[in-house]
Amino acid sequence: MNRGRPRDGKVDEAVSAAVREILDEVGYQQLSIDRVAARAGVGKAGIYRRWRSKAEMVFVAVVHGTEIAPPADLGGLRADLTALVEQIIVLLSAPHARKALPGLIADIAADPELATRFAGTFIDRQQNVLARILERATHRGEIGSGSDPVLAHAQLLGTVFVHLFMLGGTPPSDLPRRLADAVAAGLDTPE
Amino acid sequence: MNRGRPRDGKVDEAVSAAVREILDEVGYQQLSIDRVAARAGVGKAGIYRRWRSKAEMVFVAVVHGTEIAPPADLGGLRADLTALVEQIIVLLSAPHARKALPGLIADIAADPELATRFAGTFIDRQQNVLARILERATHRGEIGSGSDPVLAHAQLLGTVFVHLFMLGGTPPSDLPRRLADAVAAGLDTPE
Repeated sequence: MNRGRPRDGKVDEAVSAAVREILDEVGYQQLSIDRVAARAGVGKAGIYRRWRSKAEMVFVAVVHGTEIAPPADLGGLRADLTALVEQIIVLLSAPHARKALPGLIADIAADPELATRFAGTFIDRQQNVLARILERATHRGEIGSGSDPVLAHAQLLGTVFVHLFMLGGTPPSDLPRRLADAVAAGLDTPE
Repeated sequence: MNRGRPRDGKVDEAVSAAVREILDEVGYQQLSIDRVAARAGVGKAGIYRRWRSKAEMVFVAVVHGTEIAPPADLGGLRADLTALVEQIIVLLSAPHARKALPGLIADIAADPELATRFAGTFIDRQQNVLARILERATHRGEIGSGSDPVLAHAQLLGTVFVHLFMLGGTPPSDLPRRLADAVAAGLDTPE
């Protein structure tokens, strides 16, 4: 029976596109599963079969696919960290992420299952990239092997988050370099 | 005309108490001005005369009154910073703040006027306390005078925020000391 609805993999695509459009138009708070279903031409049941909640649906459409690239080796810890901060700023400033992230984080803070999924994708990926940067710096003899990527990552992500979402918008252009320097200075000193 | 409603300063008190109760019961997303008005025994018009929005009302009830104390001089930069991180954790982990803050920050990120008010109270107060800690450390000769309290504060607040609201809950007990050490290491070196 063809009811003019997208099927299979096409549903994910249609829903993601609808989520992004509606985020642009009305933001995260006003986005509802009803509205997304209508825009995507998908039944509500089809949406609930795939995603547990609005937050889960938006997360997949906006955040899940966002990759922090494995960083090129720029030859030094501070340069590598600066490039990583630049990537995090680009990721969090992308129009859809910017509109969705604060509301999404509010939902994540209230939903342990979603928090686990968020930590296992978005956060893990960034921590792994940072861990590789720290390994390279350890091999170069720039830092000791006792540096903690979890703390350093929380400093990088948290500082960018505060600038973008609490201090009202555009981080200073020298933030990547200055934050990279500050975090690098706090890492384990070489043996 | 006595309609059995609280008046004048009593309205603020009744509304703040109602906001806190309703946050405990249903969280920030489900809290509405209607619900607060009914619980506080206050007319909706009276609420809208005082606060522009739900976010503004919750902000005043939960965040505005929260003071970061001027820190005791513990005799050293790292000890002073550790005490400040401990205070920020306590402030953000308080049951009402914990329930309200993520949703509030989502609203702040979408509302420049509220963002300005938030920056002018909550953020300013913390930056000022940190600036005093850095001044003392400069006088002691522990750091140079070029240290930036805005960047250092964003690192402290952001790292605590990530631990509480993105990494799922309870920061490790050694976070204050380790974060203080990391941030201290990134400050301007003494002349």
